[in-house]
Amino acid sequence: MTRGTVLSAPFLLAALCLAQPRPPALHSPDIHPDRTVTFRLSAPKATAVLLTGDLVKTPQTLEKDSAGVWTITIGPLRPDLYSYRYSVDGLQVIDPGNQARPATMFTVPGDGPDIYDLRSVEHGELHERWYKSKSLDEIRRVIVYTPPGYQSAAPKYPVLYLLHGAGNDETSWSESGRVNLILDNLIADGKLKPLVVVMPYGYAYPPVSPLAAGPDAMKRQRSGFNRDLIEDVIPLVQANYRVYTDREHRAIAGLSLGGAQALGAGLAHPELFSRVAGFSPALGAVTSPEAGGLDFKQLLANPAKVNSQFKLLWVGCGTDDTLFKSVQTFTQTLSSSGIALTYRETDGAHTWLNWRRYLAEVAPKLFPKG
Amino acid sequence: MTRGTVLSAPFLLAALCLAQPRPPALHSPDIHPDRTVTFRLSAPKATAVLLTGDLVKTPQTLEKDSAGVWTITIGPLRPDLYSYRYSVDGLQVIDPGNQARPATMFTVPGDGPDIYDLRSVEHGELHERWYKSKSLDEIRRVIVYTPPGYQSAAPKYPVLYLLHGAGNDETSWSESGRVNLILDNLIADGKLKPLVVVMPYGYAYPPVSPLAAGPDAMKRQRSGFNRDLIEDVIPLVQANYRVYTDREHRAIAGLSLGGAQALGAGLAHPELFSRVAGFSPALGAVTSPEAGGLDFKQLLANPAKVNSQFKLLWVGCGTDDTLFKSVQTFTQTLSSSGIALTYRETDGAHTWLNWRRYLAEVAPKLFPKG
Repeated sequence: MTRGTVLSAPFLLAALCLAQPRPPALHSPDIHPDRTVTFRLSAPKATAVLLTGDLVKTPQTLEKDSAGVWTITIGPLRPDLYSYRYSVDGLQVIDPGNQARPATMFTVPGDGPDIYDLRSVEHGELHERWYKSKSLDEIRRVIVYTPPGYQSAAPKYPVLYLLHGAGNDETSWSESGRVNLILDNLIADGKLKPLVVVMPYGYAYPPVSPLAAGPDAMKRQRSGFNRDLIEDVIPLVQANYRVYTDREHRAIAGLSLGGAQALGAGLAHPELFSRVAGFSPALGAVTSPEAGGLDFKQLLANPAKVNSQFKLLWVGCGTDDTLFKSVQTFTQTLSSSGIALTYRETDGAHTWLNWRRYLAEVAPKLFPKG
Repeated sequence: MTRGTVLSAPFLLAALCLAQPRPPALHSPDIHPDRTVTFRLSAPKATAVLLTGDLVKTPQTLEKDSAGVWTITIGPLRPDLYSYRYSVDGLQVIDPGNQARPATMFTVPGDGPDIYDLRSVEHGELHERWYKSKSLDEIRRVIVYTPPGYQSAAPKYPVLYLLHGAGNDETSWSESGRVNLILDNLIADGKLKPLVVVMPYGYAYPPVSPLAAGPDAMKRQRSGFNRDLIEDVIPLVQANYRVYTDREHRAIAGLSLGGAQALGAGLAHPELFSRVAGFSPALGAVTSPEAGGLDFKQLLANPAKVNSQFKLLWVGCGTDDTLFKSVQTFTQTLSSSGIALTYRETDGAHTWLNWRRYLAEVAPKLFPKG
């Protein structure tokens, strides 16, 4: 018996353990050629299973078979990147059958690559960085996208500050929004001048903080966020990335709560920002007295000034969005006051299906090529 | 009625929607001063709820009260960073009461900061980058840690290639392992010479791929991984980061499957690596004939050669690890053959509780200061 043989016996065991097949997972989601999709979940003891996410307008009930497998077929769905979960007797469950990374998403393919697809093009980088926010006396995280070629090329880049929605965080635009792949694709296709994108955490005080409750909560959130952005994040980015530092090369955009923050911070600070965009903005966080927000009366009274300050003011919303009426009224009020605004009304609801496409539409308009 | 008033009404509604309180979440996990921890989950219709994760040796059963709330108190637990989930009638559920990010983890604090804690020190960066692997004809992702000061300082850095375990991916060392915070803390405390860490995806063929099954699967995984690492990842890193490119400044380490990959690739390639470490290595993936692995007989026959080639050969394992016996036998065989090896036997099992501490122990030994 050689030493080699001595070694092999126990290690082979370990190898077999690693190779041992798991119980066969149900094939789910099962995307059919006609773009209908079947979902399957084994939950013999559950009494109600719902399908939730941006692929359905309201939660859909699955049917249980005699083996305890719950099933539903929906669609046909429009080609897109969808997010979903199950609600099993009220508890959120990630589909154990989904082999994608992350297992909460799947793609219904179209005839060609879509804006968010991973393609064989040059790729930029996402940077994840902790920093000490002096204004909030807290260590916070920011995600920064640098475009392909950033490492090797010498130039400076314009910057977009891009804000997430309520209940999300600084990782949402990269994880759910695929900001890096969308911009990589636009740059590869010659549609976008390379830029840097900065994604900070949008809550001055996270929803669980005592400071996130009480009568002055919205005002505190708003002023804390603005201070962190202006006094900490922007200087941090300018000290660590090759970006232009003038207003002409600085834009701000966001979705939902972040859309309101972008409009609020952007319009209040023309000395910092020259381009402003709100995706399905939750305008209450800008305009309500509780938010301690922007003085819209003053803006509306000086449309010529606003128009001279901002090269782009863009607002988009889906007609199925619960915020649609408020966004429509807001944009009509601005437009009828003479403020130059691009208002983009699409179908769809308050979901990433719209926000990814708004980003792909707005990004090339921010800092035109040439 | 001024325009300002017109604006306020609908937006105030939106603001109130955002501020609307969710149903009160149960306080869970509830970490008591004596370091016992209570878990609570509301699941009135469930028939069995288990607590799983690295905080318990085996899944623990929760008790249900008349209101449908399931509860268990465990511990006292040693101060550490724990990961857990519930199993509700066999389905994995993330604790809806946990307000941490991610909601799958919580910290039992000790008397001072621990190795993985977010501290007010200088922080490095995590870089997330997609690349085209020519050897695997696939677009893959790699995560790279650069130390504090990387942007501003001019020097080159040594590199550690750090590999994840079975069922995990390239994000595991940063998300579960907190590699960036551990290294930031060691550097801040003057215990670690700054280095770059590269975390590739360890499967040549993901577990769901047809190429991950069949008689030659282990051999195919092993050779595919080695080719991607050597022909794609290392050149990519050297083209894009300021790192030394000689074997003296290149180390490889990993956990479980990745521990075996590190030992396999490291010991087989002394021209590339001078330091090698395996954390709880699943040695079957190196040593079994099925793996098409390393020729250990040849290594054991030439201990002096091995000792002259490798500045560090480190293996660690916990006594409660199911792989413990195999790792112990392996290290005894190497040592008794005259191969210089640091073998670190700890308590604990096959979990991140050990792997984070192994990293903190090994990192400073790789490229000594001074």
